[in-house]
Amino acid sequence: MTVAQRAPEHIRAISPYVPGKPIGELAREMGLDEAKIVKLASNENPLGMSPKARAAMEAALDGLALYPDGNGFALKHALAAKLGVSTDSLVLGNGSNDVLELAARAFIPAGASAVFAQHAFAVYPLAVQGVGGRCVEVPARFFGHDLAAMADAIDVDTRIVFIANPNNPTGTFLPGPVIEDFLARVPTDVLVLLDEAYNEYLPPELRYDSVSWIKRFPNLLISRTFSKIYGLAGLRMGYAVAHPTVADLINRVRQPFNANSLALAAAEGALSDDEFLERSFETNRAGMAQLIRGFDALNLQHIPSVANFLTFRVGDGAGVNRRLLQRGVIVRPVGNYGMPEWLRVTIGLPVENERFLEALAEALKG
Amino acid sequence: MTVAQRAPEHIRAISPYVPGKPIGELAREMGLDEAKIVKLASNENPLGMSPKARAAMEAALDGLALYPDGNGFALKHALAAKLGVSTDSLVLGNGSNDVLELAARAFIPAGASAVFAQHAFAVYPLAVQGVGGRCVEVPARFFGHDLAAMADAIDVDTRIVFIANPNNPTGTFLPGPVIEDFLARVPTDVLVLLDEAYNEYLPPELRYDSVSWIKRFPNLLISRTFSKIYGLAGLRMGYAVAHPTVADLINRVRQPFNANSLALAAAEGALSDDEFLERSFETNRAGMAQLIRGFDALNLQHIPSVANFLTFRVGDGAGVNRRLLQRGVIVRPVGNYGMPEWLRVTIGLPVENERFLEALAEALKG
Repeated sequence: MTVAQRAPEHIRAISPYVPGKPIGELAREMGLDEAKIVKLASNENPLGMSPKARAAMEAALDGLALYPDGNGFALKHALAAKLGVSTDSLVLGNGSNDVLELAARAFIPAGASAVFAQHAFAVYPLAVQGVGGRCVEVPARFFGHDLAAMADAIDVDTRIVFIANPNNPTGTFLPGPVIEDFLARVPTDVLVLLDEAYNEYLPPELRYDSVSWIKRFPNLLISRTFSKIYGLAGLRMGYAVAHPTVADLINRVRQPFNANSLALAAAEGALSDDEFLERSFETNRAGMAQLIRGFDALNLQHIPSVANFLTFRVGDGAGVNRRLLQRGVIVRPVGNYGMPEWLRVTIGLPVENERFLEALAEALKG
Repeated sequence: MTVAQRAPEHIRAISPYVPGKPIGELAREMGLDEAKIVKLASNENPLGMSPKARAAMEAALDGLALYPDGNGFALKHALAAKLGVSTDSLVLGNGSNDVLELAARAFIPAGASAVFAQHAFAVYPLAVQGVGGRCVEVPARFFGHDLAAMADAIDVDTRIVFIANPNNPTGTFLPGPVIEDFLARVPTDVLVLLDEAYNEYLPPELRYDSVSWIKRFPNLLISRTFSKIYGLAGLRMGYAVAHPTVADLINRVRQPFNANSLALAAAEGALSDDEFLERSFETNRAGMAQLIRGFDALNLQHIPSVANFLTFRVGDGAGVNRRLLQRGVIVRPVGNYGMPEWLRVTIGLPVENERFLEALAEALKG
């Protein structure tokens, strides 16, 4: 028998995550000029990174032969001050993907289960399968989470409930009070992992203070990222806020140097740049209006979104996607989310949105 | 019951890795000037990073709002060309720590076991405990691996045997033919994880071509890093070379963006810089001679090392370490490796080695 044949069944059954196609890869495949490709596939910030993040990163370039500070002293102190929590409530991740996985590894033994919604972020089932856990997928309502049904799906085997708010790839939203009611229903020994990767894109009237809930609900873990509005996807930095006993356990399975030195520095810089955050928010709001006008003009249905992307119905998702790629436009097919008739587009700069809408009008013609 | 109380026993039992003390932390604790602190605690390259790595990294600074290339196209092609393997034999890791953990997760189900040597790298037991595996530690011989005893320790539960060559923290070495003989004895369904983090420091006469063994032994996985001689510890980049079926399984549990964009770029740049590698090697060779002369003058025993560090006997390791810290010199205590009478020092620049030896002479006086 080979090593591969003897690997656990739950590992051999995993189909890896399919990321948005990198620009370089499309250029190679299609013989296109990289500079002419528009990538609106991975919900990245079209403004790039914050100037303060960049300056902080550049100041750290000389120390890269040294290991990072494994405890993330400076960034944790900055986050703790901003969030009003103690540093022992924080876990730093190599992107929030790392946080999701670490939580699964710390809290789901093989054979136990996790609950999440249909059309929820693809990393949840991957994290659960990776530890030999069982996935309980609860049907969506209008493409969003059905929290009542998710609460009903919790049983004695359940260790984690994943909630994405807003959800990726659908952009749907649960109001804060609805989540609070849900937390009050969940058994205290089940972790509720509230994934707020797109939190900073919420319109002011929808914002809620989830961090303040941790005192009442010590089984709540909030996951956030610097990959979206903060524009640091390439550097990898995410974090969790949780009760210190929960954070402590997750830190035990965390690789000692999971967060690299430049991500630590840049994230600290980004945290203090309110101006960039505001500009990114406004760019997104205007871009969303532009894309919705475009979808309306093309008579395309879209799912109302509060994030930095829109999911829209084209019928033949794979075919339209292929024709968009031929025109140098990368969006995200969501067939693997059970939505083969839909595509997801990230809200870009006005000129990128325009390029996308023009290419889409052509691609729809077949 | 709380979430933390319900976490699996094997998670609650983990004591996290204790990294080398960061310079900033010592400065805060002791009220010292950071510029006057000498850190020889984490086997980092005292020359910093390669100029070619730095140039490649700087060229990538503009694209950091985009996710990294999750498949690491460019770096994998460069590594494949250098090593004479196909790209599907490679796994990229967030440091080689990531590779070690991914292998444990892909191949060790809860309850199965892994074999490693006494005084071997502390991440092996952590990786095994993290998946609920059982650790089988085989007594060392002259501080090095006893491969005959390790082969005898393999039983039906064994999934991985970890071999560190050279070993950290002892610097001991196994000749290539001895490892080949061991591979011929190991059952084909047990993974042999050969950790070669310090491989590039081997003197020419001790080098061996482990990558060529994979054809004969498809249960061999070789782990390497850019954190040591390549000087990129702060950026995080390691890799595995293995049979494609083994690499494929590990890639299934790999986070899709585990390797950040700058690490990918810098590693590719570093790979092509033979001049820097040579200079780092020579600096290390001269520094080792300098330190050995110093230990001899102080009548201190050291373990013969083929890596970029030396482990030496002081009697009261904790006490001497404390007095070194007071003098602004950070080395690594190895009490957690079952060696409380020893300390490990990284070979630094001549002036750092001198500072260390002077501080050591004083610290030994008590």
